[in-house]
Amino acid sequence: MTHIIILGCGFGGLSAARELASADVRITLIDRSNHHLFQPLLYQVATAGLSAPAIAAPIRHILARQHNLTTLMAEVTAVEPARRVVVLDDGSELAFDYLIVATGSRHSYFGHDEWANVAPGLKTLEDAFELRRRSLLAFEYAERETDESRRAAWLTFAVIGAGATGVEMAGTLAEIARHTLHGEFRRIDSRHARVVLIEGSDRVLPPFPADLSEQARRQLVKLGVEVRTGCRVTGIDADGVTFSSAGGEETLASKTVVWAAGVEASPLGKSLGVPLDRAGRVVVAPDLSIPEHAEIFVIGDLAAAVSDGKPVPGVSPAAKQMGRTAARNILHRVRGEATVPFKYADYGSLATIGRKSAVAMLGRIKFSGYPAWLFWLFVHIYFLIGFRSRLMVMTDWAWSYFTFARNARIVVGPDDRTGPKTDPKQ
Amino acid sequence: MTHIIILGCGFGGLSAARELASADVRITLIDRSNHHLFQPLLYQVATAGLSAPAIAAPIRHILARQHNLTTLMAEVTAVEPARRVVVLDDGSELAFDYLIVATGSRHSYFGHDEWANVAPGLKTLEDAFELRRRSLLAFEYAERETDESRRAAWLTFAVIGAGATGVEMAGTLAEIARHTLHGEFRRIDSRHARVVLIEGSDRVLPPFPADLSEQARRQLVKLGVEVRTGCRVTGIDADGVTFSSAGGEETLASKTVVWAAGVEASPLGKSLGVPLDRAGRVVVAPDLSIPEHAEIFVIGDLAAAVSDGKPVPGVSPAAKQMGRTAARNILHRVRGEATVPFKYADYGSLATIGRKSAVAMLGRIKFSGYPAWLFWLFVHIYFLIGFRSRLMVMTDWAWSYFTFARNARIVVGPDDRTGPKTDPKQ
Repeated sequence: MTHIIILGCGFGGLSAARELASADVRITLIDRSNHHLFQPLLYQVATAGLSAPAIAAPIRHILARQHNLTTLMAEVTAVEPARRVVVLDDGSELAFDYLIVATGSRHSYFGHDEWANVAPGLKTLEDAFELRRRSLLAFEYAERETDESRRAAWLTFAVIGAGATGVEMAGTLAEIARHTLHGEFRRIDSRHARVVLIEGSDRVLPPFPADLSEQARRQLVKLGVEVRTGCRVTGIDADGVTFSSAGGEETLASKTVVWAAGVEASPLGKSLGVPLDRAGRVVVAPDLSIPEHAEIFVIGDLAAAVSDGKPVPGVSPAAKQMGRTAARNILHRVRGEATVPFKYADYGSLATIGRKSAVAMLGRIKFSGYPAWLFWLFVHIYFLIGFRSRLMVMTDWAWSYFTFARNARIVVGPDDRTGPKTDPKQ
Repeated sequence: MTHIIILGCGFGGLSAARELASADVRITLIDRSNHHLFQPLLYQVATAGLSAPAIAAPIRHILARQHNLTTLMAEVTAVEPARRVVVLDDGSELAFDYLIVATGSRHSYFGHDEWANVAPGLKTLEDAFELRRRSLLAFEYAERETDESRRAAWLTFAVIGAGATGVEMAGTLAEIARHTLHGEFRRIDSRHARVVLIEGSDRVLPPFPADLSEQARRQLVKLGVEVRTGCRVTGIDADGVTFSSAGGEETLASKTVVWAAGVEASPLGKSLGVPLDRAGRVVVAPDLSIPEHAEIFVIGDLAAAVSDGKPVPGVSPAAKQMGRTAARNILHRVRGEATVPFKYADYGSLATIGRKSAVAMLGRIKFSGYPAWLFWLFVHIYFLIGFRSRLMVMTDWAWSYFTFARNARIVVGPDDRTGPKTDPKQ
């Protein structure tokens, strides 16, 4: 029987697997984690609004009833197209007839890997826990700090990159400082915390039209975020961020830095031995297969795909659509039919900023503020995997909307930014 | 103004703090974590039934409106009774007029600290995450394993100690193997997993009457647990557990071992310089103060207290009651009045075993099975801190009761029991 291997169970891999549910094939879905993650809401875990299980579900559980599919939790170290095998972390190999590579992207420090420890990004649940720990503990350390300038550095949050993730993080951190934590400290006033959003280009949310960017900027300022556009970051260390702008070089003293400035494609793309674009993405044919290997498809953030002459953006609806097209093209090939080219259906763009704030663009319709936020809310809850998660998220959000409370403010594990380590056994 | 320091925000410390809410004193509550933990339900986090925020709440948030109280997240390294100061991890000192030490207990390996890495215990959220990761990944590794005996070791779970925690863990692990995971794997049958509960004494739940112990044993067996009483553990390593019984020495090949066999008091007790009992607990006076320092009180699991000539058990109702008595005795002292002796009100004992299984003893009334389980459920939901948590827990449980699904089956972070490490950045 035809054996299809799918690498990665993000939006792309999962939609490909589901598209093949009733096909007479054997599927192996390999992911290095045990869960599918609803990444658009990951910033809510990082900012203590949602617990991890609310936005993540075991892959095995989601696909338990798809009997032509085996889930394998394993790390794939390489693909060998010539031999049609994938190599796992334990050295074993798995042969395929068709392969879908959907291993996505990770954050990139543009050659400054030394920034990774002081400015974590946000791609996985581990990342979200790390950012949650750092943000919440910063207020705790500020409460203990007696030196005024060190206290100010604990109460300054720098978010680098004003794309969707950066804007969400900055808006939500400002909301936490101004509302959630207000009245819970005795020595500091959490409302005095500074949230500084640093962006290299001349406006926030660069992929959006200029007027929506301006709307987003105004909403951020209203939430209490300091927006600094046109600022190029030149250094990050344990004490803060250095950046240069038209006004010269500046240093912002900050103990909590969030990296939201860029991504690079999964390194698995390299092992395919085909041309990559500047961001490391695999340049795919119109049917999403790769040159010289019509049985290998690359989808999602790892693919540099083109539809109607325009590059396909790295967003979840595009990944899902590519997953379906790749799955169908495999079935076409199995039946000896011609494949079809991928066509991206763009339903619009949405970005949330914080409580009651968002911008939306649906075709030519643009709107912002509270209506956009409500629209964003319903779209995201609707697309969350499974009824259970939807229920949990709705309960959590209804609660926090009315009370400003954030329900997952639990810090677990040590923090390496200060003093002596806690002995976990004590 | 009189300054009271409370060390530890478990059940004892929290109830002491609340008892002092309207007193004309200044209180500093110090805990090394940011959350109060509802420990009786911790095994539900370890077995993926509940998310961490469902059973933990930020201390600051719980006590935000108590204006005579400051919360400090810090590690206390020592108490110096003679100078009336506590020493923090950064070397700074805080002076007190009265002190309540409520830092509880941690698990003890009885001199075999080398077992800690292979057989984690269950006291903190970190512990619960570690056990959750190990239990869930064991099934994943079994699915990948081709060697039959190694696969069997991955599918064998050893729980050491048949007190309340051990019985809960064993019963719930059996439920996961038989129900939750059934049908989600393709190569293994999760129902074939073995859960072995190893106990040194001759029956499970030793503090309960013998007939209830026997009821508990029967319910465990019905859930699929192998109960081995009268077995003394002599060795634990990465491959399994060695124990001796009347039948001689045996080795159980198991890759997942849970330590639930014993606790020892917090090491802070030592720094008080007063007599300790064999378990390291502080021997307190009838009013819960310590010898020669009438201004220092020790409560909860750290205290060896006596009420009506009987030792007070290390359970949460006792800790709460001691917290209230210590707080009142401080107010008595402040007013120059005589202190009152602690009197333990024993409302009964309860232990849950798994789905629909529990044993209960209320005074002379003993019952078990489904009625005891329902009773246990309502008592625990009732006592959970805050309406929000109660709602979350009830929703989660109603859901998992009807579907057998477990909602927090999310694995985060690496596991050191197998093969190559995952590069968290890839």
